[in-house]
Amino acid sequence: MGFPKSIETLVNEFMKYPGVGRKTAERFVFYTINKMDKESTKNVAEALVNMKDNINHCKVCNNLTDDEICFVCSDPKRDESTILIVESPKDVFSIEETADYKGLYHVLNGVLSPADGVGPEEINIKSLWDRVTNKKVSEIIIATSSTQEGETTALYIKRVLKDLDITVSRIGYGVPVGLNLEYADNLTLSKAIENRKKL
Amino acid sequence: MGFPKSIETLVNEFMKYPGVGRKTAERFVFYTINKMDKESTKNVAEALVNMKDNINHCKVCNNLTDDEICFVCSDPKRDESTILIVESPKDVFSIEETADYKGLYHVLNGVLSPADGVGPEEINIKSLWDRVTNKKVSEIIIATSSTQEGETTALYIKRVLKDLDITVSRIGYGVPVGLNLEYADNLTLSKAIENRKKL
Repeated sequence: MGFPKSIETLVNEFMKYPGVGRKTAERFVFYTINKMDKESTKNVAEALVNMKDNINHCKVCNNLTDDEICFVCSDPKRDESTILIVESPKDVFSIEETADYKGLYHVLNGVLSPADGVGPEEINIKSLWDRVTNKKVSEIIIATSSTQEGETTALYIKRVLKDLDITVSRIGYGVPVGLNLEYADNLTLSKAIENRKKL
Repeated sequence: MGFPKSIETLVNEFMKYPGVGRKTAERFVFYTINKMDKESTKNVAEALVNMKDNINHCKVCNNLTDDEICFVCSDPKRDESTILIVESPKDVFSIEETADYKGLYHVLNGVLSPADGVGPEEINIKSLWDRVTNKKVSEIIIATSSTQEGETTALYIKRVLKDLDITVSRIGYGVPVGLNLEYADNLTLSKAIENRKKL
């Protein structure tokens, strides 16, 4: 005989989350029992259900939002001539943290991966075509990751857009700022040398 | 501008759990968005609220249970002459996993800690007195941890029970089974030598 059923059920639910094993799940449950009152337990539960109910994809760029249009697309001060393409909404929030980029985004929600059966129809590329042909876009910056799939996706997008009068660029790859050379991997070092700039 | 409000709220709720920092909380939230449907999200939320609503302390031993009386106290096959005293319900489940102990438990829900203002009134000792004077208990095994507070609590309980015809014992401390001596700390080694047995 193990834990009471209500505890066992919650342990199993917590174990669905990434990186949460049995011991961690038990720790969460006993924390809920010992340190949280009914009110704050209900707050966690409601935050979960509310988030899942309210969150959806921006009708324009496919970023995550609680509204119809995300905070970037609905901001009139953003530069509409530039669209930065990322794989996932999380990338948007990472770039927004730098507060440097003033253009718009386009979230693919994936990358092309023929091996996994992910073709152009499976990711959010068609709506990119509609955006660039309807609007006054002058530059597309592709920021998919530097994996094989990310590179394939970047090349595919470049090909799709090649007949339009639009600059298509790729974000720069190299040694991260502040990282000692000895900790950079070989591929990153090769890219850094390839992407060298005249001083 | 950061995450949509519904995401930010859930990130903050997850961050209340022990060992969960911002990055881990964000990982949980994006897992909920990308890998869980509304149904399974609701299951987590309901498991949380149900657990908090249903779980309570056994009227007899103070162990956690979904019912009035816990699975140990309600089992007629348990040996009523022995009561093992632990600090927390989690200790009960740990000992039950060994499947060796057949007696009853008594959960203190804490240890005496004068420095933190925790006296005998603050932990579940009075009900222990009621149990041992009303029933045919012949042995009390004290399994509080070997911290200063755990030892103080053990000595206090021994003193409280000294006029009753009851054997009061303490669980054995020593080197964990399977642990190489070099990894045992000094205190454990001292205890192990003190608790030596004739071969």
